[in-house]
Amino acid sequence: MKNRFAIIVAGGSGTRMGTDAPKQFLSIGGMPILMHTIRRFRAYSADLNVIVVLPVSQIPVWEELCRQHQFQEAVMVIAGGKTRFQSVRNGLQSIETEDGLVAVHDGVRPFVTTSIIRNSFETAERTGSAVTCVPLKDSARLIHADGSSQAVDRASYRLVQTPQTFQLALFKRAFEVEEQPFFTDCASVVEYAGYPITLIDGSYDNIKITTPEDLEIAEQKIRSAH
Amino acid sequence: MKNRFAIIVAGGSGTRMGTDAPKQFLSIGGMPILMHTIRRFRAYSADLNVIVVLPVSQIPVWEELCRQHQFQEAVMVIAGGKTRFQSVRNGLQSIETEDGLVAVHDGVRPFVTTSIIRNSFETAERTGSAVTCVPLKDSARLIHADGSSQAVDRASYRLVQTPQTFQLALFKRAFEVEEQPFFTDCASVVEYAGYPITLIDGSYDNIKITTPEDLEIAEQKIRSAH
Repeated sequence: MKNRFAIIVAGGSGTRMGTDAPKQFLSIGGMPILMHTIRRFRAYSADLNVIVVLPVSQIPVWEELCRQHQFQEAVMVIAGGKTRFQSVRNGLQSIETEDGLVAVHDGVRPFVTTSIIRNSFETAERTGSAVTCVPLKDSARLIHADGSSQAVDRASYRLVQTPQTFQLALFKRAFEVEEQPFFTDCASVVEYAGYPITLIDGSYDNIKITTPEDLEIAEQKIRSAH
Repeated sequence: MKNRFAIIVAGGSGTRMGTDAPKQFLSIGGMPILMHTIRRFRAYSADLNVIVVLPVSQIPVWEELCRQHQFQEAVMVIAGGKTRFQSVRNGLQSIETEDGLVAVHDGVRPFVTTSIIRNSFETAERTGSAVTCVPLKDSARLIHADGSSQAVDRASYRLVQTPQTFQLALFKRAFEVEEQPFFTDCASVVEYAGYPITLIDGSYDNIKITTPEDLEIAEQKIRSAH
C-alpha cells in the first residue's frame, strides 16, 4: 500500500449558518462536525496521514476543542489560504513525497463511508483520479446569458462530492498553475492541467453541512444511527 | 383573479421506499404526505380547484385514508396514466376551461410555501409560465457518450422543482403532442411546444420525498415546525 494522505479542508466561516462559530466546529451528536469527519477517515485506515486545513485564526479554537473533547487523533494542522484552491495547495505543500495518493475532502461532510473512501483510493491508484459524485434527482435547466433557459438531459450530469482522490505526482503538478475563477473543486484543477478524471459513486447520504437546516438533518442522522 | 387550478400528481409506488404503501400515503406528523401537500395549496387560496391524480388502484385506498383522517378538503380525484406525462394530461382533461392558470405539483413535496405558490401563479399570469427551481449547491460535471466527463459552470444550471404553473390555454396546447422520452417535467413539454419558460425561485426546503431517508428528514422538519 502506497503512502496515503487525506487533506480535510475546513475553511468555512459561520456566515451562512447565522452563527459565530465556523460551521465545521458546530456540534452534531455532541461533537464538532470536523471530528466526525476525521474519524471517518481514521476508520478507513489507521496508517492514513490526515492533514486538516483551517483558517489560521481558528487553529487555537480547534486546539481548545480537541482538549475539551479529549480528541486525540493524530492529525497535522495547516493554515489555509484565502480560497479553497489555496487551502488545498497549502495542505499539499506539507506532503513531501510525490509517491502516493491524496484524498481531498470537505471538513463538513461527516457522513462519508469507509467504502467510498476505500473505493476512492483504489480507483485513484489504478487510474490517477477518483472523483465522488451522484446523479441528479431532479430535472435540470441550463441558463443562457440572456436569461432564457432550456431543459438538459439530467442523466448526462453528475453532482460532485468529496472525497476527490488523486495520485500525488499528478496532483502536485496540477496545483502548480495559477488559480482560475472556474476552479470550484479539485477535479476542475486536475482537468485544467490536462489529466483525465475518473468518476466514482458517492451517496446522497454524504451531505455537505452548510445551512442551519443541514445541521438539523445531520443531528437527526446521528441520532438515528445510534 | 382568473380561474386557478392545481394538479397534484401522486403516481408513485412504494418501490424506492422499500414499503408496500405508495410514498404519497406514508405518514409524516401523523398524516399522509399527500394531505399535507393538499393543505399547502388550500392555505394559498380557498377558491383554488385542487385535482389529485392517483393510480386507479390507489383511489379506494385514498378514500379510506380520507375517512380515517377525517380529511374533508374538497378535491377532485382523477385516475392517472402510465407515466407522469399521461397523469398530468388526465388531470388537465378534467379542466373544462381554457381561461385561467394551472399549477402542477408533486404530491410528495409537502413543504412548498404559500409564497412560492403565490409567486408561481402571479408570474404565470404575467408571462405564461413559472417553473420553480433552485441553484446547484455542488460542482457539476457533464458526462459524454464515451464515459469521459468535464466540469461545467454550476452557476449556469438550476435544479427544477414544482410547482410549475402555466396559463391554461398554452398548457393544453402543449399537451396535445405525442409523449417524448425527454419529457421529465411539465417545463420540458411546454418548451417542446415552443413556449418560453420563466424560472422562479424555489427553496431547498421544498424537498421531494422519495427515499426512506427523505421520509426521516420530513418527519424531523414537521416535528421542529411544531
